[in-house]
Amino acid sequence: MAASASAAATLPTTLLLRRLLLLSPRRHPTTPAPRRFRSCCCSSSSSSPAAAPAHPHPPAGGRRLRGELRSRAMSSSTNSTVLAESVATGSSVDVELLPFVNDKHGGVIVEMTAPMDPQLFSASLKASLSKWREQGIRGVWIKLPISLANLIQYAVEEGFWYHHAEETYLMLAYWLPATTHTLPVNATHRVGVGAFVMNDKREVLAVQEKSGVLRGLGVWKFPTGVVEPGEDINLGAVREVKEETGIDTEFVEVLAFRQSHKAFFDKSDLFFVCILRPLSFDITKQDSEIEAAQWMPVEEFAAQPFVQKHELVKYILEVGLAKVDKDYAGFSPILIKSAFTDKKSFFYMNRRDLDKASESSSTQKKTEKPLFMEKL
Amino acid sequence: MAASASAAATLPTTLLLRRLLLLSPRRHPTTPAPRRFRSCCCSSSSSSPAAAPAHPHPPAGGRRLRGELRSRAMSSSTNSTVLAESVATGSSVDVELLPFVNDKHGGVIVEMTAPMDPQLFSASLKASLSKWREQGIRGVWIKLPISLANLIQYAVEEGFWYHHAEETYLMLAYWLPATTHTLPVNATHRVGVGAFVMNDKREVLAVQEKSGVLRGLGVWKFPTGVVEPGEDINLGAVREVKEETGIDTEFVEVLAFRQSHKAFFDKSDLFFVCILRPLSFDITKQDSEIEAAQWMPVEEFAAQPFVQKHELVKYILEVGLAKVDKDYAGFSPILIKSAFTDKKSFFYMNRRDLDKASESSSTQKKTEKPLFMEKL
Repeated sequence: MAASASAAATLPTTLLLRRLLLLSPRRHPTTPAPRRFRSCCCSSSSSSPAAAPAHPHPPAGGRRLRGELRSRAMSSSTNSTVLAESVATGSSVDVELLPFVNDKHGGVIVEMTAPMDPQLFSASLKASLSKWREQGIRGVWIKLPISLANLIQYAVEEGFWYHHAEETYLMLAYWLPATTHTLPVNATHRVGVGAFVMNDKREVLAVQEKSGVLRGLGVWKFPTGVVEPGEDINLGAVREVKEETGIDTEFVEVLAFRQSHKAFFDKSDLFFVCILRPLSFDITKQDSEIEAAQWMPVEEFAAQPFVQKHELVKYILEVGLAKVDKDYAGFSPILIKSAFTDKKSFFYMNRRDLDKASESSSTQKKTEKPLFMEKL
Repeated sequence: MAASASAAATLPTTLLLRRLLLLSPRRHPTTPAPRRFRSCCCSSSSSSPAAAPAHPHPPAGGRRLRGELRSRAMSSSTNSTVLAESVATGSSVDVELLPFVNDKHGGVIVEMTAPMDPQLFSASLKASLSKWREQGIRGVWIKLPISLANLIQYAVEEGFWYHHAEETYLMLAYWLPATTHTLPVNATHRVGVGAFVMNDKREVLAVQEKSGVLRGLGVWKFPTGVVEPGEDINLGAVREVKEETGIDTEFVEVLAFRQSHKAFFDKSDLFFVCILRPLSFDITKQDSEIEAAQWMPVEEFAAQPFVQKHELVKYILEVGLAKVDKDYAGFSPILIKSAFTDKKSFFYMNRRDLDKASESSSTQKKTEKPLFMEKL
């Protein structure tokens, strides 16, 4: 980036001023042709198609390319803008390629950090795309921090589309080959947790919320929440219960889950019903979100009209009680490691049934070599 | 929007030209103070905090407010820009409020569709924010299509941050009260599926992929894929198997799932291991993604060195065989409805154990009234 800035500094002042004029406030980028996001194949591992940014190859940026400012296709313009562009088109200046790293999938990643003259960015991007196309590069990622929001339109003008955004940055994507892209899809789901926590008096932990659709209705519900970015479901459930009620718990099992769509805007929701074992019993409710919290006799909880007409809550109660009173088996987590990295992830399965299956294999089929020797 | 355009048309030409100068290409928006996304409480229903856009109140836009262009805080500027702004500051013009709809949570949603002069947008946004603040509005959403990328920086300058982005639009968010916001978090997870499909010769459906980390290694793996936006897990698994191998299947159960983090950029991944019953047997492999597909003796599949060192694949095999040969119970889906809307969602649970629990309740506790009378 420092190199780019110094390149800009060498431009004649008059050209720089003309460049400033290039950016007409009335201009808006053209809408790119719609693309359909195809599902990319998952490699059954934690090393997914776009995992590259965590392990980028050494930076290969800083190469120079003799380029020139090309005229820009605009959907609308003013006369002065067209004039300025004509002048600029005739000039030939050094244009730095954008700094980038290669990813593992034949693509490149540009991560912008410092402010850059928008016209210089645009020219550098054009020159970079031209070079990358020659080199057979496939996907191009540009990560723009929110402080560089003024550069977005120039990437869009070159055909980039939005891949995803977080609070402080926007990720743009482009596919250079003349084929359908194989870039990974954006995140599609939010993950929520609901907690069934019962003490030995057959009372369940119940809360009334200060916001949401049940606000002010006096309805007692199970503690629920949304897992934070990068948080494990089992840890998220324990955290939510602690935050809302002050109760310490131990995660036992995922008893069930629900997938719903258009839960917020066009996004989907996966809601995991968890059963937790209480380790403490004195309630300290959270003031900001929770109106009230209590240990409530489960029959009283179940008798609420809200529960009677709410199929999801009825099922949470049903699987919770089946676990407590009967022989219901949910999924419990074990840590497994990836074949490709040292990363560990939680794998949730019906361990009771799998243990039984292993036992019966070892007693009934002693002559056969079991497929899996490892103890869970 | 048409009203805004006509308002712009009434501005004196000289003022309009000065406005064009306001947009210095060297300016970049200031970085907003970092905010921490707090988890919002899930209401245990499909009617989540941000479900409002699907059922917005009637548009309340179009109200007029006598406003004036205020000077803008800039991180850098040129002399000419400062001059132009000083002139503009002294002028007083009619500024339209941005068109908006109210949401159900005390907030407003602005969905921009037509091009707008960036300075007019900026002035309208300032005036709108001022009005909304007076009215006690909480969250403000602005949805900008990619064709209006040139407006993003003006929303950022007012303090908006990025909430999420899809291919064709960016959603910006702002919180007017002086409290921590309670807006829903962005989507955090991609959802993948892996398919265990076995025929009655104890052969599993196996594929070799054309891309990904296993490309060219001759490794046979289970068919996998990513569910599409809005797609159900069970339907996604059936679709992926059909696409990759041409085999028709019936979904049986989710046998297990894995949650991993930083699977692509900072996003997480939920991978559901599904068992499917084959309904057809002649393989027609997909040319674009699949190198080869076959029915493969399960012992041969398991003996691959790749499988031996890959804990996830070993567990997929283990739970698959425990289901086929033993008494392993996974989660199977039923459709349940929301208490608040007519929407239906799939709820996945251990139906075998729940059915058993219901049976034992009805035989052993005939004198007690069962909590749940409904048959699954």
